[in-house]
Amino acid sequence: MTEKTAITPSTHTAPPAKFSHGVRKGNILQVAGQVGFLPAAEGQAPTPAGPTLREQTLQTFANVEAILTEGGASWDDVMMIRVYLTDTGHFAEMNEIYNEYFKDLTVAPAARTTVYVGLPAGLLIEIDALAVLG
Amino acid sequence: MTEKTAITPSTHTAPPAKFSHGVRKGNILQVAGQVGFLPAAEGQAPTPAGPTLREQTLQTFANVEAILTEGGASWDDVMMIRVYLTDTGHFAEMNEIYNEYFKDLTVAPAARTTVYVGLPAGLLIEIDALAVLG
Amino acid sequence: MTEKTAITPSTHTAPPAKFSHGVRKGNILQVAGQVGFLPAAEGQAPTPAGPTLREQTLQTFANVEAILTEGGASWDDVMMIRVYLTDTGHFAEMNEIYNEYFKDLTVAPAARTTVYVGLPAGLLIEIDALAVLG
Repeated sequence: MTEKTAITPSTHTAPPAKFSHGVRKGNILQVAGQVGFLPAAEGQAPTPAGPTLREQTLQTFANVEAILTEGGASWDDVMMIRVYLTDTGHFAEMNEIYNEYFKDLTVAPAARTTVYVGLPAGLLIEIDALAVLG
Repeated sequence: MTEKTAITPSTHTAPPAKFSHGVRKGNILQVAGQVGFLPAAEGQAPTPAGPTLREQTLQTFANVEAILTEGGASWDDVMMIRVYLTDTGHFAEMNEIYNEYFKDLTVAPAARTTVYVGLPAGLLIEIDALAVLG
Repeated sequence: MTEKTAITPSTHTAPPAKFSHGVRKGNILQVAGQVGFLPAAEGQAPTPAGPTLREQTLQTFANVEAILTEGGASWDDVMMIRVYLTDTGHFAEMNEIYNEYFKDLTVAPAARTTVYVGLPAGLLIEIDALAVLG
């Protein structure tokens, strides 16, 4: 019997409901939808890294990576990245930030899907990810 | 060679197209997008459990669970739950129902992503899920 | 150590960012979000198969299938198909095309989720898929 383990990096705010920021079972690691909140500070409400797409995207990447690391994985293990944007006009800028962020990886990190949805007020981007460990 | 098996609980209406409510192959079980339709009744069109978010959410959970059970899994095997809402204003109430529904599970059930999309008229919530069996 | 491999059919345009059209690792194959672009032609920008839902849906299926084939899989290995539409009014016609496309498969191809989102101008449908090889 393989155990399912919840992954909760210390940098993360408590989930707003009964779910985990990430879970791992066997070689499968699933990262929940992450947004651009700054590292958790006690007694403070979750705060976005800033109002811009760049600030939020980089913070969201950092939040996904913290979960991958805590679960024993890296970007190289990621099979699928889902990017949720609120504005089709943000696509080109997001891709620029994305390419820059991943430029040193020899293998393109993963398959990707970008969809345009609503998000809570003030949030411009959300990312979730599925990893398969080697 | 591992077989892929379609999972069709008797409570479910026939899918509106050539796909399965759930499929299992090896230790992976995927639940298709479920909505708040009442158990299938012969000769009757699919009917939502009610107009409210609470009624539809609880019915949707029941519909996901029926597929998990039929496939030999439980909520505890679920790695990812995707919740699709039609209104960002429903988030707080959905979380309340969600926390109540899962309150007796010792391990938070899974990673989760909530996105705000359109759904067919009258439907307020859709949920799909990925499970990995132990 | 299982290797992650990028899957890039020759028919595909280069991804607009640092990601792969598909990736395979062990028995898991993930297809990135595909749209209805015609096979890549050198020196030409990605061009949708046509303005209609039918043209784009059939081309999108062909693009997903090319990745499955290149990765050693087929529709029969697909566990989950996610269909993104831009208009709830397209649902019935999409299902018709879908059923026709898959009519010769003995087992319904997979679980499915359809959500209504925004897509870049001119694109009516996007599909991604998760496959587990036997």
